[in-house]
Amino acid sequence: MTTTRNSDTIVAIATPSGVGGIAVVRLSGPSAAAIARPHLEPMPTEARRATFALFTEGETTIDEVVVTLFSAPHSYTGEETVEISCHGSRYVQQAILQCLIDSGARLAEPGEFTMRAFLNGRLNLSQAEAVADLIDATTPVQHRLAVSQLRGGYADELRTLRGQLLDLTSLLELELDFSQEDVEFVDRSTLLDLIAKMRNRIYYLCGSFEDGNALKQGIRVAIVGEPNAGKSTLLNALLQDDRAIVSPIAGTTRDTIEELLTIGGLTFRLIDTAGLRHSDNPIEQLGIDRSRQAIEKADMVLVVADSQTNVDDTEWLLEECSYRGKKSLLVVNKADLCHPPEYGNISPGSSCYYISAQQGKGLDELKQGMVEQFRGGRYDDVLLTNARHRDALQHIGTALDQATAGLEQQLPADLVAVDLRDALYHLGTITGDVTNDELLGNIFSRFCVGK
Amino acid sequence: MTTTRNSDTIVAIATPSGVGGIAVVRLSGPSAAAIARPHLEPMPTEARRATFALFTEGETTIDEVVVTLFSAPHSYTGEETVEISCHGSRYVQQAILQCLIDSGARLAEPGEFTMRAFLNGRLNLSQAEAVADLIDATTPVQHRLAVSQLRGGYADELRTLRGQLLDLTSLLELELDFSQEDVEFVDRSTLLDLIAKMRNRIYYLCGSFEDGNALKQGIRVAIVGEPNAGKSTLLNALLQDDRAIVSPIAGTTRDTIEELLTIGGLTFRLIDTAGLRHSDNPIEQLGIDRSRQAIEKADMVLVVADSQTNVDDTEWLLEECSYRGKKSLLVVNKADLCHPPEYGNISPGSSCYYISAQQGKGLDELKQGMVEQFRGGRYDDVLLTNARHRDALQHIGTALDQATAGLEQQLPADLVAVDLRDALYHLGTITGDVTNDELLGNIFSRFCVGK
Repeated sequence: MTTTRNSDTIVAIATPSGVGGIAVVRLSGPSAAAIARPHLEPMPTEARRATFALFTEGETTIDEVVVTLFSAPHSYTGEETVEISCHGSRYVQQAILQCLIDSGARLAEPGEFTMRAFLNGRLNLSQAEAVADLIDATTPVQHRLAVSQLRGGYADELRTLRGQLLDLTSLLELELDFSQEDVEFVDRSTLLDLIAKMRNRIYYLCGSFEDGNALKQGIRVAIVGEPNAGKSTLLNALLQDDRAIVSPIAGTTRDTIEELLTIGGLTFRLIDTAGLRHSDNPIEQLGIDRSRQAIEKADMVLVVADSQTNVDDTEWLLEECSYRGKKSLLVVNKADLCHPPEYGNISPGSSCYYISAQQGKGLDELKQGMVEQFRGGRYDDVLLTNARHRDALQHIGTALDQATAGLEQQLPADLVAVDLRDALYHLGTITGDVTNDELLGNIFSRFCVGK
Repeated sequence: MTTTRNSDTIVAIATPSGVGGIAVVRLSGPSAAAIARPHLEPMPTEARRATFALFTEGETTIDEVVVTLFSAPHSYTGEETVEISCHGSRYVQQAILQCLIDSGARLAEPGEFTMRAFLNGRLNLSQAEAVADLIDATTPVQHRLAVSQLRGGYADELRTLRGQLLDLTSLLELELDFSQEDVEFVDRSTLLDLIAKMRNRIYYLCGSFEDGNALKQGIRVAIVGEPNAGKSTLLNALLQDDRAIVSPIAGTTRDTIEELLTIGGLTFRLIDTAGLRHSDNPIEQLGIDRSRQAIEKADMVLVVADSQTNVDDTEWLLEECSYRGKKSLLVVNKADLCHPPEYGNISPGSSCYYISAQQGKGLDELKQGMVEQFRGGRYDDVLLTNARHRDALQHIGTALDQATAGLEQQLPADLVAVDLRDALYHLGTITGDVTNDELLGNIFSRFCVGK
């Protein structure tokens, strides 16, 4: 790939497809200027200077355009790049694209501009992935997570740690050549300290994945509880009370409808578990199973109870949440009807809110409580949102655990080095220091053409 | 309008709506740089130099962008303009737009950038209208007509003629102040020569409207003829034989389906008049009416006859075309079945093609003949395509006719001047030297936002 990656010049419409005021056709590669030149009058001579020009095909004027030339390596891709800003007519866009293809450019594959930026060292692999996330972002949190990753995120930090570990591992491997002499090039405590530092960071990142993924995909909130506790009324009250409803979207199952609700910049996917009806007996198996499934799929659970109901009827749901490590809030509804009972047995991790869904009382506090479960939406730290990275980090964690154990048991350097090499390999797949065509293909195929 | 037109700064997403690699947010007005500056790090200092920057809102990074500053009057609008090229995410586009609105910009109306370009003298009104045509263009001919108009077209020429006529009219009016002294500031033959020159040009342009409009909208081709002459077979043969079918589009009536066919860069809208069935008797009134309606609506008519049919049965259709001034081709189908009859009585303006729709014979010649009816698609001259301009030109023609008659009858200068002022007014509405809010509103409301 290294030998051929810069040999051809690619072209694509970089702006969204359709009709608009203007559109941008982007050309990147060693012949970008040479391919564009015969079509432009005048051809810009100075890099990065927006120049008015006619785009022509033979005698025919295709459009009046503004052209900006970027010289390698000072462009998005790191290659010579020509950006042609034309009128946003379908015909003009296609005509300019076709002219440039006829003159020797190749239509870019999805994500190929960003892949070239990665291959030319303008972005690391994690940043390249962030570009796709950024383009797909539709909510403030998705956007913030993507920008954080694009601005470096944890990949920069992992890369630094990887460099340090690589140095130590190489020295450790060097000891093998001198195994008869019983020398130690690597101070074992220094190595253990570095590994411990990396493990801490990696376990933090892995631990942040659930929150990160929930924030990125929208936080799935299951509303569970007894029939007539007021689940549907609560759902409607939450939705009606807040104007930030994006749209109702069909869930993954036929029975489930999700409603999107944005509170404090966080997107919640409220999952109506109206299907859950476990008749008279709360211990009835079908009802329990359904509740468990709803809780299992959720990032957060609202356990709704009628203020006049026995505490025990709801307690098992809170325990279920606790057992499965789910954030949960106990919502005591119809609090206006009577003096609410004391819930002395509330499970650890649950908070209790007294509301009247019918009268719209206590909803602001409840919503605030929902946001607080996700640190009030204030995620200043880096969060892991990428499933590929999570898998790699789990591999790294395991390898570092084994290396630590080996060092502590004073195993031979070569055995420890195997674990460290394994960790280095997986670290490299995050930063892009280790790549292969399949990996790159998977990552960049989800891009749009023109990026 | 003159006093307020530059007082505010407008902003819009200039690229097509949706998700893509990049999008462009455009800001234009006296405060464009001042509004953008607090959000950009760094703010470009040099005009027209594409500068990498962070777009921020307070502490939050919204995106990595490329910013180009255009100083007045060297921009599209003639005003200070900032173009921000950001990632093509819906969220990023909206966030940047909202930041700039919060900082004092106003969301642009449809076409407002181009209207400002017109008001600041960067485009004349005819060119501004061409921008909308260019953006809407989907076929090569529509595109060529729009580019021709954008590059100046007849508006430049009309403007020059208008200037000359304005000078002579002013001198003519000056004579009124000296009416007691019987002086002539304007040589009558010079004035008549100029008027004659303008009339020629105006009649040429008006005459080109039918072709121009047909080319712009797609040339409506009615296929008429006796039942069983092979009209549907011909339609299918034309469509199947050519890969450039764009799509079948629903016609204006329920009975009519139009098929688009591109030949030699011209778009033909083939109108299937299968509904026309005038039973045994061709003179039957209903059949005649339907044929007449089809011919009336068409830019061109293919009169299809069976090679074994009596000439007289088709002759009335050709005469109908001739009477209504429609281009027509006589298509003698099933020419393989027998030696075709002589059509000695073919109406003037009709050409005759012998084909076999069934066997696909003679179709290339027919298609070539269809293109030839529109000068082979080679319209190097300027063509009138704008109905507003046609109406204005007809007014001008009438006014100039009256002025000519007045001059020839040696009517008093003030009477002639009234006609000339009328012509000048309507000339001004084409070039934009005469405008009013309603006129501008009508023109620019058909633009997209961001242009």
